[in-house]
Amino acid sequence: MPDQPLDVPLLDLSAGSVDLTQAICDIESVSGNEKTLADAIELALASYPHLDVTRDGNTIVARTMQGRSRRVIVAGHIDTVPLNDNLPTRFETIDGRDYLWGRGTVDMKSGVAVQLKLAAELTAPAHDVTWMWYDNEEVASDINGLKLLAERRPDLFVGDFAILGEPTRGDIEGGCNGTLRVDITTTGLRAHSARSWVGDNAIHKAAPILDILAAYEPRSIEVDGLVYREGLNAVGISGGIAGNVIPDECTVQVNYRFAPSRSAAEAEAEVRELFAGFEVTLTDAADGARPGLDAPIAQEFLAAVGGRALPKYGWTDVARFSARGIPAVNFGPGDPLKAHADDERVALDEITGCEAALRSWLSGSSG
Amino acid sequence: MPDQPLDVPLLDLSAGSVDLTQAICDIESVSGNEKTLADAIELALASYPHLDVTRDGNTIVARTMQGRSRRVIVAGHIDTVPLNDNLPTRFETIDGRDYLWGRGTVDMKSGVAVQLKLAAELTAPAHDVTWMWYDNEEVASDINGLKLLAERRPDLFVGDFAILGEPTRGDIEGGCNGTLRVDITTTGLRAHSARSWVGDNAIHKAAPILDILAAYEPRSIEVDGLVYREGLNAVGISGGIAGNVIPDECTVQVNYRFAPSRSAAEAEAEVRELFAGFEVTLTDAADGARPGLDAPIAQEFLAAVGGRALPKYGWTDVARFSARGIPAVNFGPGDPLKAHADDERVALDEITGCEAALRSWLSGSSG
Repeated sequence: MPDQPLDVPLLDLSAGSVDLTQAICDIESVSGNEKTLADAIELALASYPHLDVTRDGNTIVARTMQGRSRRVIVAGHIDTVPLNDNLPTRFETIDGRDYLWGRGTVDMKSGVAVQLKLAAELTAPAHDVTWMWYDNEEVASDINGLKLLAERRPDLFVGDFAILGEPTRGDIEGGCNGTLRVDITTTGLRAHSARSWVGDNAIHKAAPILDILAAYEPRSIEVDGLVYREGLNAVGISGGIAGNVIPDECTVQVNYRFAPSRSAAEAEAEVRELFAGFEVTLTDAADGARPGLDAPIAQEFLAAVGGRALPKYGWTDVARFSARGIPAVNFGPGDPLKAHADDERVALDEITGCEAALRSWLSGSSG
Repeated sequence: MPDQPLDVPLLDLSAGSVDLTQAICDIESVSGNEKTLADAIELALASYPHLDVTRDGNTIVARTMQGRSRRVIVAGHIDTVPLNDNLPTRFETIDGRDYLWGRGTVDMKSGVAVQLKLAAELTAPAHDVTWMWYDNEEVASDINGLKLLAERRPDLFVGDFAILGEPTRGDIEGGCNGTLRVDITTTGLRAHSARSWVGDNAIHKAAPILDILAAYEPRSIEVDGLVYREGLNAVGISGGIAGNVIPDECTVQVNYRFAPSRSAAEAEAEVRELFAGFEVTLTDAADGARPGLDAPIAQEFLAAVGGRALPKYGWTDVARFSARGIPAVNFGPGDPLKAHADDERVALDEITGCEAALRSWLSGSSG
């Protein structure tokens, strides 16, 4: 039985969302090792005839087919960053608040657990729902399961609104900043440092680059009602051959985080203008995502959920939806500052709070 | 016969200095591999009863014991930098001038050959001579054969004047600049570059360090009649953890080459004052050497040899003599710009010219 081996863990999707979070956290799924969890999800979903289930690699898609006028995509990644002695999970109480501690509890298996539970429970939601659980979010973009799904199955990648379950403490974080990286390189002429006047010091020539960066005042830009804080930073610098050689090359790596009001191409042009006269090489760029909160369906979601709407600074997969014209927000339990932390832990009331809010909106009982 | 194995190459010290240069170049002696050449030198010297020969590791010392009022040290290193397909040697003629091409021809086996030939020939020199041929000059200072000899056999390290056969094209290069290295470090606070305002960018804080270096005007300082050009240079810079992390540390490695009018401690104080307010760590320092050309014996040598007297910018082992109160100069065949070069080659007339000048002075027939 190659498709459903005997050792696929059983997931009870009718369990409470806290217990379901613990169950899927304890199935270790560090990026590259998601197969067991993907098998378990696929097996569990097979019991629910209201869901049309598709598998692409270790990405599972489950759709309701109720013929509703609008379709919502609800997505979450099932991989985690590497463990650091933080599995299996355990329950903790800190200052009177209950938590589930362990890798993945925040980023983002609590969000996935809420989604799985509601996928099973909501047999006739108010909007049709396309649930997506995907692999390889925490690693190189080119193997990201959501990216690959969009490329391989564009027919599944349709909807009027998308909700990504990344941790937001139950707030709604709209859109995300764009990001780009450039290498700014100076060149000179090597020489023995005992005769430095024969050479031309490339590191000294990098002084104005650092001056520009140090003097730069990052902006805050309002987009669709949310204020995005930008940042322009050296994230690396290197130069030098040996302790007695005048260096002939110095490279400053710069990361620009820019509000989603501009495209990556526009942001690149700004950086090139700022460092005019220097050799600037683009090494990486990703458009941001406008928050999309002006769409009526997004406004309805916002009203129903009742959380604050905030800008998302870091780049997330919501940009993959925005790029296809689908308004998308981040909404999930867990404090993002605990994501990837060794003491990663989620407050249980955030899990149940997100579950209740999402159920309320999807079942049409709110607003 | 462990002391004189059968495979010790025979060196004919009565041969011409050009042939002798070729013979010892073709005995490969990259630093760490000097034993065969040291064995050959020791064996060849054993035939000359006017020399008192001592061996320390792969360093050979040969002294005349004529009871002269003054003693001159004449020294040269027998190791070379690694080969790059440039052995065995060959003769070349370029623009009508004859050269010997190959590793070691310039730095500094032509100088050693002249010394070996004169050590054998001058049975009763005008000044007593202590000849020194030593290993490991091209590598880490702590295994330098001359340094070790000075520490282990201070009784041999006495004289009124020293001549080091480093390549000078037959000019006399007096003294040498001192050198020191410091690490200048800035610190900050790590943060995700999507929320850069939470962190504190250590690379940006290095901007004033590079500004100081770029604006610095190196001096030229006259010492004992020779003008030393100084230099202050970044020779390395590093900082950054990852493309999405605000760096919390940046280090600039700076090399200061300073005229021998000041000690390394004084030069260090200058650097610390220049970079006041920054964290400055001394990593390496060596005093320079005053040219010592004001000593009467040095003046006699200068007059006899008739070459130009020039400052030596790079640090050489003459400083080991100066530090012990022995005036010392560099004097040898070969263009220093060809030292370590893949096309290392020495003009034959420089070899014979140095030989004639040194013979003339040591035999007392000049001046």
